[in-house]
Amino acid sequence: LPPSDRNEVFSCFVFYAVLLVIKMYTIAIITGQVRLRKKAFANPEDALRHGGLQFHREDPYVERCRRAHLNDLENILPFLFLGAVYSLTGPSLTVARLHFLVFFLARVLHSLAYLLALQAPTRSLAYTAAQVPCVSMAVQILMSVASFA
Amino acid sequence: LPPSDRNEVFSCFVFYAVLLVIKMYTIAIITGQVRLRKKAFANPEDALRHGGLQFHREDPYVERCRRAHLNDLENILPFLFLGAVYSLTGPSLTVARLHFLVFFLARVLHSLAYLLALQAPTRSLAYTAAQVPCVSMAVQILMSVASFA
Amino acid sequence: LPPSDRNEVFSCFVFYAVLLVIKMYTIAIITGQVRLRKKAFANPEDALRHGGLQFHREDPYVERCRRAHLNDLENILPFLFLGAVYSLTGPSLTVARLHFLVFFLARVLHSLAYLLALQAPTRSLAYTAAQVPCVSMAVQILMSVASFA
Repeated sequence: LPPSDRNEVFSCFVFYAVLLVIKMYTIAIITGQVRLRKKAFANPEDALRHGGLQFHREDPYVERCRRAHLNDLENILPFLFLGAVYSLTGPSLTVARLHFLVFFLARVLHSLAYLLALQAPTRSLAYTAAQVPCVSMAVQILMSVASFA
Repeated sequence: LPPSDRNEVFSCFVFYAVLLVIKMYTIAIITGQVRLRKKAFANPEDALRHGGLQFHREDPYVERCRRAHLNDLENILPFLFLGAVYSLTGPSLTVARLHFLVFFLARVLHSLAYLLALQAPTRSLAYTAAQVPCVSMAVQILMSVASFA
Repeated sequence: LPPSDRNEVFSCFVFYAVLLVIKMYTIAIITGQVRLRKKAFANPEDALRHGGLQFHREDPYVERCRRAHLNDLENILPFLFLGAVYSLTGPSLTVARLHFLVFFLARVLHSLAYLLALQAPTRSLAYTAAQVPCVSMAVQILMSVASFA
C-alpha cells in the first residue's frame, strides 16, 4: 500500500470521527440547555445561582440526555481507537469508508432516537447497526496483529 | 530502535487493547440481556415494547453491570491512549508486553469480580493491579517528553 | 514541516495529555478515599467488608466526585483524540501549545471547582474555556481532511 492511500483511509476516518466528537459535544450542550429550561441541576451551587436549592433535582428528560451521552462514551470513544488502528492495517478505501459511514449514520440515528424518544426498537437497531463495523474492524485488526501477541 | 521492533511493541499493545474493547462490548451485551430477563428498562419506550410502563424501573444487577461498564470506561479508555504512546517511546518488547499483559489480566479479573460479586477486596485488588502498569507507562512517557513541554 | 517540529508538537500534546490522565486517576483515588471515610459503598460486598450492609448507600460528596469524573470522561477522552490528530496536521508549536495549555489549565480548574463546590459559574466557565481549544482543533482537523471525505 503506498503511503498516500493509507493517508486517504486515515483522513476519511478522521473526518467522520471528528464529526462524531462534535455530535457528542452537542449532546452535552443540549443537556445544559435542558437543565436551564427545566430548572433541574445536579449541583446545589448551580441551583442556588438559578433560583434556589429546590432546583437541585432530577428531571426525566435530563436523565435521558445523560443516558444518550453515556452511550456515546461507551461506543464512539472505542471507535476512535478501532478506526485509527484499522486505518493502519491497509484496508481498501472503499471498504474502510463503508465501515466509517455505517458507524457514523447509525450513531447519528441512535442520538436522534434517544433524544426524540422514538418508538422501540429504533434506538436498539441503530446501536446494533453501529456495532457491526466496530466488530468487523476489531476482528480485522486482531487478524493482522495476532502473530505479535 | 529499528522500526520493526517498535512495530512489534505496538502490535502487541493493539492485540490486548482490542481484546479489552471486545470485553467492554461484552459487558454492554450482558447488560442488555439482563434488562430483558429482569424486565428492567431505562427508557419508557423500551418498557412499552416489553410489557408495559411498569417495567421502566431499576434493577440491582443491571446497576451492577452498568458500574462495571463505567469502571471500564474510566480505566480501559485511558489505557488505549497510554499504551499507544508508550509503544512509541521505544520500550523493550519483553517489558512492554509485561505491562500490557498485567493490565489485560487484571481488567478481565475486575470484570469477573464485578459481575460475579466476588468477595471484597478481589475487585479492588484487580483495579489496583491494573493501575500499576498504567502509572508506570504514564511516568515513562512523561520522562521521555518532559523536555518538550 | 520537518519531522522534528511535528514531533515537538506531538510531544507537547502528550505531556499535557498524560498529566490530565493522571488528574483523572486522582479523582478516582479521591472517590475511593471518600467512600471509605464516609462509609458509603456502591456494592454490598464492599459494605460487608467495611462494617455491614447499612453502608451500601449513597453519599452526596461521593456523587459529586463521580460527576467530576464522568465530566472528565466526556471531555478529556475526546481531547486525547483531537490533540493527537491535530498534532499531525502541522500546526505551529506556539499555537498548538496554547491550545493544549488552555485546555489543561481549564480542566484542572474544572476539577477544583467541582471537588471544592466553588460558587457558580466557576465550574461552567472552566468547562466552556476548555471547550474552546477543542472546537478550534476539531474545525482545523476537519478543514485539513475535508477533501478526503
